[in-house]
Amino acid sequence: MPSYTAPTKDMHFVLHEVLKVSQRDIPGYSDLEPDFTKAILEEAGKITAEVVAPLNVVGDKEGCRLENGVVYTPTGFKAAFKQVCDAGWPGLATDPEYGGQGMPFVLGNAVGEMFNSANQAFAMYQGLTNGAYAAIHTHGNAEQKAKYLPKMTNCQWTGTMNLTEPHCGTDLGLMRTKATPQKDGSYKITGQKIFISAGEHDMAENIIHLVLARIDGAPKGIKGVSLFIVPKIMINDDGSLGARNGVSAGSIEEKMGIHGNSTCVMNYDDATGYLMGEEHKGMRAMFTMMNHARLGVGLQGVAQAEVAYQNAVTYARERLQGRDVTGAKNPDGPADPLIVHPDVRRMLMDQKSFVEGARALAMWSGTLLDQADRAGDKEAHGLISLLTPVVKGFLTDQGYDMTIMAQQVYGGHGYIEEQGMSQFTRDARIAMIYEGANGVQALDLVGRKLAAEGGKPLMGFFELVKSFIKDNEGDAALKKDFLDPLKAASKDMQAAGMYFMQNGMKNPNAALAGSNDFMHLFGHVCLGLMWAEMAKAAMDALANGTTDKDFYQTKLATGRYYMQRQLPATAMHLARIESGADTVMALAADAF
Amino acid sequence: MPSYTAPTKDMHFVLHEVLKVSQRDIPGYSDLEPDFTKAILEEAGKITAEVVAPLNVVGDKEGCRLENGVVYTPTGFKAAFKQVCDAGWPGLATDPEYGGQGMPFVLGNAVGEMFNSANQAFAMYQGLTNGAYAAIHTHGNAEQKAKYLPKMTNCQWTGTMNLTEPHCGTDLGLMRTKATPQKDGSYKITGQKIFISAGEHDMAENIIHLVLARIDGAPKGIKGVSLFIVPKIMINDDGSLGARNGVSAGSIEEKMGIHGNSTCVMNYDDATGYLMGEEHKGMRAMFTMMNHARLGVGLQGVAQAEVAYQNAVTYARERLQGRDVTGAKNPDGPADPLIVHPDVRRMLMDQKSFVEGARALAMWSGTLLDQADRAGDKEAHGLISLLTPVVKGFLTDQGYDMTIMAQQVYGGHGYIEEQGMSQFTRDARIAMIYEGANGVQALDLVGRKLAAEGGKPLMGFFELVKSFIKDNEGDAALKKDFLDPLKAASKDMQAAGMYFMQNGMKNPNAALAGSNDFMHLFGHVCLGLMWAEMAKAAMDALANGTTDKDFYQTKLATGRYYMQRQLPATAMHLARIESGADTVMALAADAF
Repeated sequence: MPSYTAPTKDMHFVLHEVLKVSQRDIPGYSDLEPDFTKAILEEAGKITAEVVAPLNVVGDKEGCRLENGVVYTPTGFKAAFKQVCDAGWPGLATDPEYGGQGMPFVLGNAVGEMFNSANQAFAMYQGLTNGAYAAIHTHGNAEQKAKYLPKMTNCQWTGTMNLTEPHCGTDLGLMRTKATPQKDGSYKITGQKIFISAGEHDMAENIIHLVLARIDGAPKGIKGVSLFIVPKIMINDDGSLGARNGVSAGSIEEKMGIHGNSTCVMNYDDATGYLMGEEHKGMRAMFTMMNHARLGVGLQGVAQAEVAYQNAVTYARERLQGRDVTGAKNPDGPADPLIVHPDVRRMLMDQKSFVEGARALAMWSGTLLDQADRAGDKEAHGLISLLTPVVKGFLTDQGYDMTIMAQQVYGGHGYIEEQGMSQFTRDARIAMIYEGANGVQALDLVGRKLAAEGGKPLMGFFELVKSFIKDNEGDAALKKDFLDPLKAASKDMQAAGMYFMQNGMKNPNAALAGSNDFMHLFGHVCLGLMWAEMAKAAMDALANGTTDKDFYQTKLATGRYYMQRQLPATAMHLARIESGADTVMALAADAF
Repeated sequence: MPSYTAPTKDMHFVLHEVLKVSQRDIPGYSDLEPDFTKAILEEAGKITAEVVAPLNVVGDKEGCRLENGVVYTPTGFKAAFKQVCDAGWPGLATDPEYGGQGMPFVLGNAVGEMFNSANQAFAMYQGLTNGAYAAIHTHGNAEQKAKYLPKMTNCQWTGTMNLTEPHCGTDLGLMRTKATPQKDGSYKITGQKIFISAGEHDMAENIIHLVLARIDGAPKGIKGVSLFIVPKIMINDDGSLGARNGVSAGSIEEKMGIHGNSTCVMNYDDATGYLMGEEHKGMRAMFTMMNHARLGVGLQGVAQAEVAYQNAVTYARERLQGRDVTGAKNPDGPADPLIVHPDVRRMLMDQKSFVEGARALAMWSGTLLDQADRAGDKEAHGLISLLTPVVKGFLTDQGYDMTIMAQQVYGGHGYIEEQGMSQFTRDARIAMIYEGANGVQALDLVGRKLAAEGGKPLMGFFELVKSFIKDNEGDAALKKDFLDPLKAASKDMQAAGMYFMQNGMKNPNAALAGSNDFMHLFGHVCLGLMWAEMAKAAMDALANGTTDKDFYQTKLATGRYYMQRQLPATAMHLARIESGADTVMALAADAF
């Protein structure tokens, strides 16, 4: 049985020594004093480790079950969900006006990592609700907000997002679900949606479906899609629940992982829906939430990598197999622990250096979102929009690879379901696909975000890297181990951007053929920047005579590993990008 | 439901235009005329596509079931296994003296790829039998050979390999299973073995277990391990079956994939066993078969990548989603097929260029084994021993990545078990682990094979690359697109070897910390060489006025992709290798 311990110490280091949150000029951030955040993170660490994590294997084994239209979640889910909601966790970072606790997103992010490490399938019920909440909060009218938000704040009612149909996933312009206006201002919604996470279950009194559909006579394509609120159970004027609406789960998908989450085919059959926002502007509503949702999925990549890594470390320390080639480390035992072997170390260091760098990136992204949302900072908004596809695509691709590596540390035992390492990989796999497959993230990054605002956010990012290097290159140790590799990686990224500029105008495919490589190149530069910043913080702590030398020295050693072993990937990505589209597009479709 | 079509045309190209098998001076190769191999491959293609492949999903869904000591294989397996055996496929490349057809290994290899693409879990029953057959053939005495081999030739009796125990996988010196000598010359075997593929099932009359165990009083460690034949059912002197032996399946493991193969815990309780080969020399017997077995597993990496790729191509051609940014390709339809999008192409080209290069490498390896086994060629033996860990480790790591990429082409539909893409990834995952986890392959390569025979095989490999380049660089097109990139990659590999030589003597960890990167670097150079050879063959065919221009031009375009997009990885691997062991080994075990 795998275990999980929340990495509160590392989160604290990032929050207070790297991002220095309580000193930042963002509304709400002055509350984020170390004592306060420590209390929150420790409580979250406790409930995730003790209540949520033990249900992870149960959820995987049992899955969800549909009987007569009712979905039964795995044993223990319902009670644990109630406990989590009663303790107020879903409302941690939501609006106090509707009963939330109003904490900044960066703190919600840290807690979110814990829930996703402990049990991704379980965390998704709350995650989808937060997504639907955010959509209503931003685009709903006053009446809708008053009606739905208070009960969604703590998942008394949960939410869903209904976009995909059998014949359209990424290309939502092909959507067929239709909405017919009624005399009372409501609509009748009819159609089928698939892959609806948490579409039906037994843990909440009601489920608030947000559904994209075409109003009769709407313009063709994506510009004719509107967004509707469709409650599972109708709500009376006094707030009590009424009759069942015309929406039901047709079946549950059998998936590779996240078995504990019910992924439903949802059938809408003259269901009553209420328009949210303007007619035909449904996609706009979706887009405004996308940064939050995609950062949340990126975080899942980090979260699965973290829990898989923790278990791999335990196994590598305990499993006795072979001898250290430089001399026995456990001479009285039958063999040395796995962790003495260089290639096992290589796998663990890959994981550790990724997870800690990725966590810092996710948390920094959280502060940028807060800066954009709470302080109305347009530069921060531009930067986080640029970074979002990188956080989503790079962290989930790499996070998945890390779960595979953690599984590999177990040898044959990693392939057996009993050990739980397979589940981490199977659960992590979905994050590369949903909320926009990673190829779509790369397309968004290269096809849209690079040139956004005339390239201002991209220039802003380069400027940020450059000025961090310039401000700190007086420190010889930091310069050699961190700033010089960062500078080299950043140059590769600039060269790639230059290649796109010079070639993408003539031939968009020349840029798009390199989009995936660019997303990864960018990701490595981001993690290089994070490691440089963390190294500086660690050096500062050591210079100031910290009593916790081991922590900071470990941090520096881990960072050096990333710079030496991972950053060289940027040159490879650049070479691929600069090879252009010719070989990628050479074949006729029937020559494959 | 996924489908499979055997790539007979591509196999034929490699066999006859690249490797020119029928012209080689290897005993048995003169039989490998195109008409003959075509007939064999087409028949194999038929039975694998029509009989074996349709059971792949069935095997995954049903798995195996243990009831009162009897293992029931999935619906249809038994009948299909009989059909395959009756048609003589398991005996294709085994010794005619015992009823086999005596074909060269290279042909068995090609057929093996097909069976593994069609249904890896099913193919393993025969694969394990072939392994046990080879061990008895090489190390058994005349009586043992006469007793077991004829019935194992066509899987009337199947075989297993029993190495792993709960506390020891890679480190077999820790083994506890014991063998007590009996007066009649036999032994009583007692102990527990785990992860025994095909350990118990209902498809054969008898199962011949090969079991590693320690004879009472044997030297400690790996030098005290002997190899025993332990039949499931005792065999009477007249060859008829007698009483049940003291061996039984204790349980079936629940695994991530290959559900159709019964992975058993085997309990030996005073089971009668017969020593094979010399006392305490059991590991030597294992090692002599290792090249065959590991090449077989490498082939599984290619096989799963091939079938996953085939389905990804079909989906990418059929699924309509989005528009070609350079102009609609299917203007009358609601959208263009996925295959118009550059990033989808990138994924398909990665897969295609890997699979075709990897197939050539596997087939070339087959000819080297034949040259060593059939012609007693020591140089070929040295070379294939060097290449074996690369074929096993690189092809299964990369093959796995390709199945993930194929699944990614499907978007959300790839995550649903219904489509079968998840199974390809889950089945492919095991090949990175069994028959020596890939970290062990890398250790074998760098710690043992590089310096074997004073480095002669390694020098031989470099010489081979060098002379191919020298012999062909007069062709300007070949030089620019293929030979120059190959030369650069080969230089990276030489630099890595130099780094190991200069640093590994002082500190073995300096070499071992780069072992995984070296295995991948070497793999890319091998595939670069294969692509250069295939390109030459394709150019020759075009120059000779072939009527099948499309095939050869596609081959060239695919090769160019590999050289431009994959070979740049060698520089990254070199940079990691040259960073040495310092960052890898920096942390104390409790600092992780």
